Amino acid sequence: MTLPRSFAPVNIADKLDETGMRGQNFIFLTDWKREQLISLFEAAQMIEPFWKHRLNLMNNRILGTIFFQPSTRTRFSTEDAMVRLGGSVLSESNPLHSSSTAKGESLFDYLRTVSTYTDIIGLRHYDDEKVFSSLNGATVPVISCGWGDVTHPTQGILDLYTCYRAFGDFMGMKIMIATPDLSRARSGHSFAMGLAQMGAEIIYVGSSKNKMLPLVHDKLNEAGAKYEIYNDLSNAEIMELMSDCDACYLPGCSVPKDNPEDRAAFLDLIKPFYITLEGLETIKKKTGRKVGIMHSLPRNDVEFDHDIDNSEFQLYFQQMAFSVPIRMALIAAMVGVK
Amino acid sequence: MTLPRSFAPVNIADKLDETGMRGQNFIFLTDWKREQLISLFEAAQMIEPFWKHRLNLMNNRILGTIFFQPSTRTRFSTEDAMVRLGGSVLSESNPLHSSSTAKGESLFDYLRTVSTYTDIIGLRHYDDEKVFSSLNGATVPVISCGWGDVTHPTQGILDLYTCYRAFGDFMGMKIMIATPDLSRARSGHSFAMGLAQMGAEIIYVGSSKNKMLPLVHDKLNEAGAKYEIYNDLSNAEIMELMSDCDACYLPGCSVPKDNPEDRAAFLDLIKPFYITLEGLETIKKKTGRKVGIMHSLPRNDVEFDHDIDNSEFQLYFQQMAFSVPIRMALIAAMVGVK
Amino acid sequence: MTLPRSFAPVNIADKLDETGMRGQNFIFLTDWKREQLISLFEAAQMIEPFWKHRLNLMNNRILGTIFFQPSTRTRFSTEDAMVRLGGSVLSESNPLHSSSTAKGESLFDYLRTVSTYTDIIGLRHYDDEKVFSSLNGATVPVISCGWGDVTHPTQGILDLYTCYRAFGDFMGMKIMIATPDLSRARSGHSFAMGLAQMGAEIIYVGSSKNKMLPLVHDKLNEAGAKYEIYNDLSNAEIMELMSDCDACYLPGCSVPKDNPEDRAAFLDLIKPFYITLEGLETIKKKTGRKVGIMHSLPRNDVEFDHDIDNSEFQLYFQQMAFSVPIRMALIAAMVGVK
Repeated sequence: MTLPRSFAPVNIADKLDETGMRGQNFIFLTDWKREQLISLFEAAQMIEPFWKHRLNLMNNRILGTIFFQPSTRTRFSTEDAMVRLGGSVLSESNPLHSSSTAKGESLFDYLRTVSTYTDIIGLRHYDDEKVFSSLNGATVPVISCGWGDVTHPTQGILDLYTCYRAFGDFMGMKIMIATPDLSRARSGHSFAMGLAQMGAEIIYVGSSKNKMLPLVHDKLNEAGAKYEIYNDLSNAEIMELMSDCDACYLPGCSVPKDNPEDRAAFLDLIKPFYITLEGLETIKKKTGRKVGIMHSLPRNDVEFDHDIDNSEFQLYFQQMAFSVPIRMALIAAMVGVK
Repeated sequence: MTLPRSFAPVNIADKLDETGMRGQNFIFLTDWKREQLISLFEAAQMIEPFWKHRLNLMNNRILGTIFFQPSTRTRFSTEDAMVRLGGSVLSESNPLHSSSTAKGESLFDYLRTVSTYTDIIGLRHYDDEKVFSSLNGATVPVISCGWGDVTHPTQGILDLYTCYRAFGDFMGMKIMIATPDLSRARSGHSFAMGLAQMGAEIIYVGSSKNKMLPLVHDKLNEAGAKYEIYNDLSNAEIMELMSDCDACYLPGCSVPKDNPEDRAAFLDLIKPFYITLEGLETIKKKTGRKVGIMHSLPRNDVEFDHDIDNSEFQLYFQQMAFSVPIRMALIAAMVGVK
Repeated sequence: MTLPRSFAPVNIADKLDETGMRGQNFIFLTDWKREQLISLFEAAQMIEPFWKHRLNLMNNRILGTIFFQPSTRTRFSTEDAMVRLGGSVLSESNPLHSSSTAKGESLFDYLRTVSTYTDIIGLRHYDDEKVFSSLNGATVPVISCGWGDVTHPTQGILDLYTCYRAFGDFMGMKIMIATPDLSRARSGHSFAMGLAQMGAEIIYVGSSKNKMLPLVHDKLNEAGAKYEIYNDLSNAEIMELMSDCDACYLPGCSVPKDNPEDRAAFLDLIKPFYITLEGLETIKKKTGRKVGIMHSLPRNDVEFDHDIDNSEFQLYFQQMAFSVPIRMALIAAMVGVK
């Protein structure tokens, strides 16, 4: 037995700097190496026990949240993380109506302005191309809180962190992603890319009517993802497959409202995907395995039995809770401590 | 002379817990016993001297204010109370436009979400039935900051606290509630229910054109209220009655704008209710009694002489000020200290 | 050599009180004497080194920002200043939709309400006359964050402070104000009035098509301003004049959008005013002088070369940064320390 290298009390500042995120923007999960994300998860896990007790890591720091698109959930959880780190928040949830952008100010100048008054920016925007061409305006790190349809990395990172905390190391982890429409499912694909990166296995369950786009296939292959796709399964077949997974991720869906025929067709299509509490309990009895149900919310009645809310299989509300320590770690890593 | 029972320095935490409000929602005044409200008033009175100096009772706590209906006054005073307790605030004053509720998320899930990021919620909503059927979604205590037309208990509690501080014990207190429309007057009835509970006497002054609804009669009788109703009095008669009261409460009114005939009729109806500074001074000269004028604001020109603003009879601006310590006590009691 | 009078450690509280601003509103620059503004600048300069490190001067104080008109920049910089002083913020950026003013509450009562919950108010309003007739409602100091077209003193004060920090004492300072439309240019005239007061010299460059209004002439003369006006100069002539100035202030402009003829005419008119990086570098080579380019933002493509952004001549982004310490000093002076 011998002393570990550099034997001294652990300092969260060092752990945060291991992520290499100081001063950087947080835009795509794939911008980061596996070890960097693991460092972030480790930092989040150190922070987690104190999340209700305020850590004074960001005491003199200010977060600016700029939301060009609605989202109480993402805005509150980001602001919450900053407040729990001892920092302050300036918030603009309606910039199109209440700022010079309404009068035609460029996003470049707008980001420069907000940078002046803050130490980090949480930006949500409907137009990702506009953001990418204006991002140089920011002189402080920027977190993507959702840009167009292409990036929403804090959803992905909180999904991954929830798995990390529930199941530990990603090696050997097996996650089902189930939806009748794999041609969309943005949050599902982000999560899958993260899982691929971490080394987990993915079981896609979809329908031949709305197949996964070739682009997504390419990206998954590029990332060396271990994945399989099953289409048009019956509910029994889905549950059978699920019994071998650690968790099932539902990326959400929107039921057509206006056209009754479209609506009926969609309800028909999603029927076999419906997850019941009974089904999960049957799996548990047979295999001893508790399959966690994940969802990025908002959810819909037709996706799964809401009685799961109060069961041991529920992970979707836990995802919201785990989003706080991981966002605390993210903000502290990007701004840097000491 | 002998030592009091349990002789030790007073601890605000104990006083707050005497209210029995820890972990509870605050929805109706009538949910609470007289002694519980008195404990709350006592706690508020302990807090009051420090309201401008920040008490560190809620240091690591977060209030979420969710206002589906407009109200700067109620939102600011609630947020103000939390800030003065050392806590933080996350605020959504436009959830219909800037959140998933806009996309059809259930209020149940929305409350669950906000609960994750906060320790207490201040909720204003236009639809009380929807709130009652969704309230289980919240996992932290919820303050009603106005739900539909049926509950606005923090207005009632601040009115009561103002009386408690102005006149002391409620026994023997006599309050006039004057309005040409007793068929509405929501804030007046809430206040009356509170007064009934505390043992004060109520003098209603109304008009036979817009009588008090049977339902309100029933509730008052049920609560054992001591009250009288006078309709269609002249101004002289109203002032005569008032000279025997401690305060006169004006529940506010809205003057019809569009139809000139309706407008003229209403102005005619409200004329005898108009309170002048001169009238109050006459009462004071005759009886030595300073009758306080209370109003829940916003006010209207036709209700009373605004010269009362700077007189000793003005209580309406004081009500706003007393709303802070009572809301501080309420939040601290519901979240719990220590 | 002898001891200075009243020899003791400097106390920021005394410096702030030298301004005479405690308890006062901040509406027009011309309400204050030169020495008072210099005291404010000195206080700001003492505060400046700590602007990123939070000063605990306003620890138990609350700022209310009430913006009846859009402006993220002004709102954020004001809130930022309060937060960096250790204070808290209550914010209403949409009072017309989310408050009783929507239901017809008077601005007088609204200001009284907000006063109850705050220690200082930052008010932006589209109707200056309405503000002036309602201002008595406020019982705490009010900062004008822009009222109608007549007052926006914090823009003026930050422009002056930027000059003070860049060039020191105003005596001998020479500032160009250049715009094709001197008949408007609100922020330019405010700044000019401030410069006049401080003793700096002003070089106006405009066009005979949109001459300065007689009213502005009168005000400048009244203030004893040292100023000259040049109209219809060529770009070469403007740059020649500029080579003798310390800074050039561009008050912003709005290019006509709808009518193509108006647009073409305006673009023609503004062409000689366009400032290039090359032009500034030529001046520097010839005279050794770095002429700073100032702008109140938002800016327009047709006013100057945006390559100036990353040059040593750029002052417009610095103006935003200097706005924080000067606003910190202003808030602390108006509320008062200790």
